Amino acid sequence: MNKDQHTSEGKEVDWTGFLPGIAIDCVMVGYNEKQLKVLILEYKETGFFALPGGFIRRNENLDVAAQRVLQKRTGLEGIQLNQFHTFGSLNRYAPEPMRKIMKKNGLQPAEDHFLLQRFVSTAYYALVNFEQAEPIADFLSDSCRWYDINQLPKLLWDHRDIIQKALESLRKNIDDAAVGLTLLDEEYTMRELRTLYETILDKEINRSSFHRKMVNSGRLERVGKKSTGKAHRSPYLYKFVSN
Amino acid sequence: MNKDQHTSEGKEVDWTGFLPGIAIDCVMVGYNEKQLKVLILEYKETGFFALPGGFIRRNENLDVAAQRVLQKRTGLEGIQLNQFHTFGSLNRYAPEPMRKIMKKNGLQPAEDHFLLQRFVSTAYYALVNFEQAEPIADFLSDSCRWYDINQLPKLLWDHRDIIQKALESLRKNIDDAAVGLTLLDEEYTMRELRTLYETILDKEINRSSFHRKMVNSGRLERVGKKSTGKAHRSPYLYKFVSN
Repeated sequence: MNKDQHTSEGKEVDWTGFLPGIAIDCVMVGYNEKQLKVLILEYKETGFFALPGGFIRRNENLDVAAQRVLQKRTGLEGIQLNQFHTFGSLNRYAPEPMRKIMKKNGLQPAEDHFLLQRFVSTAYYALVNFEQAEPIADFLSDSCRWYDINQLPKLLWDHRDIIQKALESLRKNIDDAAVGLTLLDEEYTMRELRTLYETILDKEINRSSFHRKMVNSGRLERVGKKSTGKAHRSPYLYKFVSN
Repeated sequence: MNKDQHTSEGKEVDWTGFLPGIAIDCVMVGYNEKQLKVLILEYKETGFFALPGGFIRRNENLDVAAQRVLQKRTGLEGIQLNQFHTFGSLNRYAPEPMRKIMKKNGLQPAEDHFLLQRFVSTAYYALVNFEQAEPIADFLSDSCRWYDINQLPKLLWDHRDIIQKALESLRKNIDDAAVGLTLLDEEYTMRELRTLYETILDKEINRSSFHRKMVNSGRLERVGKKSTGKAHRSPYLYKFVSN
């Protein structure tokens, strides 16, 4: 839902400007110091928790809509979003929470309002540094906060399945995702990089075979040593080779 | 489009049974003896070529719809389809070909008919043995045929981009796709498997490192020797380990 077209007065909202039947959901996976988090909104005065999501304007590319939805609902901008799956099971259809959310925002939707009908959802994920990202709740939400990926609140619709699938995609594309992480645009030690991989993959990784694999990948560049005061014990710093 | 709801008489078609705004397209990649082909329909009396595609019923899961669309439009059944991307660029909106196709099928669509409006498309691919698959043109099409992936006819909408992206996904997921190929559910030599990989990846692969990688993957099982009459020169046969 979108601030521009969905005021708190609500009654004159023009929903015809959106494509019916298709939504967007964003799984922002936060990483920092061996922890993974997910960004979750709490809908105003409902106790409903959900992923940041929204709809596509009739004159807007799908990928552009995803950026706009993320920005409007969380305040986060300039993040490379990866489309990973479109969810279209009948099970995900459950109009009651949406009706309640709309009512809390001053809307009295007709029974055939498209928000109360079935829609599929195209989902995007991104890996971000949750200490650097500063999410802001939009006018529809009481909060917009990072939750430990293993301690999520009960979520609306199929949003838990969407997070699970995002995590699978992230694991499969970990080499690309790591490059995308803001933290790792800078310099880091091989240990820091391995810790990132271990956290995402949720398993220990052999130190030397990881080192070998990374060096052989040709994607890393050695840029110097970390200053620790003891030159002979200082670890090397790396950065990703830009294309 | 679907036979059940779209007769050649056309006028009384009930399109309200479908979700508006979202379509499905299927990229069937055929493999046989070092060749890749793609299954293309030619729309009746239009000279329009396109991927087999269709729409989603209101009471149908997205993945089930993809199977139905494939079956109705090409006759192919029981094939594991892999959803790989949803295409939602504004550029893909071009209602004229659709209007012409509808007219050729006896329909006089109103200007606001959903088939003439913008829709996004969720796309699926599968790797099949094109010698074993026997596609059949549906009532909307003059033909349903395999085309060399490097010699495709001019295609409607963004279907060439969809094929390109399918090929990228197939390359990325080649280990899974190979298992899915009917041919390779049976037994094959390491050379046959390598040829499959070389064809899909469009590059030569080092024989011994491929052999090592495959054996180390734990996904292959040696099942005997191919009978050539000369036991000492007969290659081993393999099959994929079932999960």
